[in-house]
Amino acid sequence: MRVLGVDPGLTRCGVGVVDGTAGRPLRMAAVGVVRTPAEEDTARRLVLVERGIEAWLDEHQPEVVAVERVFSQHNVRTVMGTAQASAVAMLCAARRGLPVALHTPSEVKAAVTGNGRADKAQVGSMVVRLLRLDAMPKPADAADALALAICHIWRAPAQQRLQRAYTAARRPPSPSSPKGGTPS
Amino acid sequence: MRVLGVDPGLTRCGVGVVDGTAGRPLRMAAVGVVRTPAEEDTARRLVLVERGIEAWLDEHQPEVVAVERVFSQHNVRTVMGTAQASAVAMLCAARRGLPVALHTPSEVKAAVTGNGRADKAQVGSMVVRLLRLDAMPKPADAADALALAICHIWRAPAQQRLQRAYTAARRPPSPSSPKGGTPS
Repeated sequence: MRVLGVDPGLTRCGVGVVDGTAGRPLRMAAVGVVRTPAEEDTARRLVLVERGIEAWLDEHQPEVVAVERVFSQHNVRTVMGTAQASAVAMLCAARRGLPVALHTPSEVKAAVTGNGRADKAQVGSMVVRLLRLDAMPKPADAADALALAICHIWRAPAQQRLQRAYTAARRPPSPSSPKGGTPS
Repeated sequence: MRVLGVDPGLTRCGVGVVDGTAGRPLRMAAVGVVRTPAEEDTARRLVLVERGIEAWLDEHQPEVVAVERVFSQHNVRTVMGTAQASAVAMLCAARRGLPVALHTPSEVKAAVTGNGRADKAQVGSMVVRLLRLDAMPKPADAADALALAICHIWRAPAQQRLQRAYTAARRPPSPSSPKGGTPS
C-alpha cells in the first residue's frame, strides 16, 4: 500500500509518501513541503496548496491519502488555515476517487511512538528509525506527514475490519440466509 | 457589478447572485442552496460543494465572489465544516481569477440592516425589501447569501479606496516625483 500523508497548513503543508503493509518493514518514497507565501491572500494560497497537492498525487500515485484530523478546540489562531488547507487536500484526493483517511494527532503519536502524548522530537526520531533514514526530515511538518502515512498503514487493517463489520450489520439479511428475508 | 454571495456550509451552502452598484437599486439574478448529504464522508461532500459552486459560477458568471468570513471562536461544533466549505468556495473563485472578498457576519448585518447585531429575521426582511422580492428566500442560508452579495456591493467602493491608498503608500516614489528616486 502506498500512502500520501498530509500534515495540513497554509504556510507549510507537510507531504510524505510511504510504501508498506502492517507487520512488514516500511519504505519512504518521498518527503517534502508545499509552501505558500504569507503575503498572498487566503484564496490565492488555497490555489497554490491545490497545485502542490495535485503535483504530489500525479508524481507519486498513492492509493490512499491520510490527512491529519483538525480540531477546532486547539490553536485558535491557526486552526482556520489548517482547516482550509486540509479541505483542499481532501478535495484533491476525493476528486480523483482516492480514499481519504483522517487520523487525530494523538492517534498518530500513539501509533508511531506508543504514546499518544509524545512530543515532536520523539515522533521525529521514531520516523527516522522506522523508515531507516539518515537524518530527521525537516521541517517538522514533513516528518509529521510521514508519521501520518505510517499511522495509516498500521491502523488500516483494524479500520477495514471495523468498516466490514459495520457494513455487514447494516446490510439486510440476504435471501440465502437461514432466516430468509425479502429479495431487494 | 455582479456578485455571487456564498454563505458556506457542508449541509447547506447558500448561494445568491445580485447585480448592482452602490447607490443604485439592486437586482437579484438568482438564489439557491448547494446541499450535500450528511451521511457521505467529508472529502466526498467537499467534492459535491465544489461541483455546486462551479455550476453557479459557470451559469451566472459573477465578477466577484463574496464569502462569509468564518471565525473559529463561534459554533465550535459546526465551524470545521463551515471553514472547509468556505475554503472550497474561495478556491473555485480564485482558480478562475475572480476576486474573493470576505465579510464578517456583523459587517453583513450592519450593511443590510444598519445594526451589526440584527437577527436572521431582520436581515431576511431587509433582503426582501432591498431586492423587491415577493417572499423571503428559503432556507435562511439562501437569504444570507443574498445579504452577503448586497453587503459587498455597498462596501466595495470604500474597500477599493482603502486598497488604492495602501498600494500607493507602499509604492516607492516614481522617477518623475519631485523628490526623485531610483527607477526600478
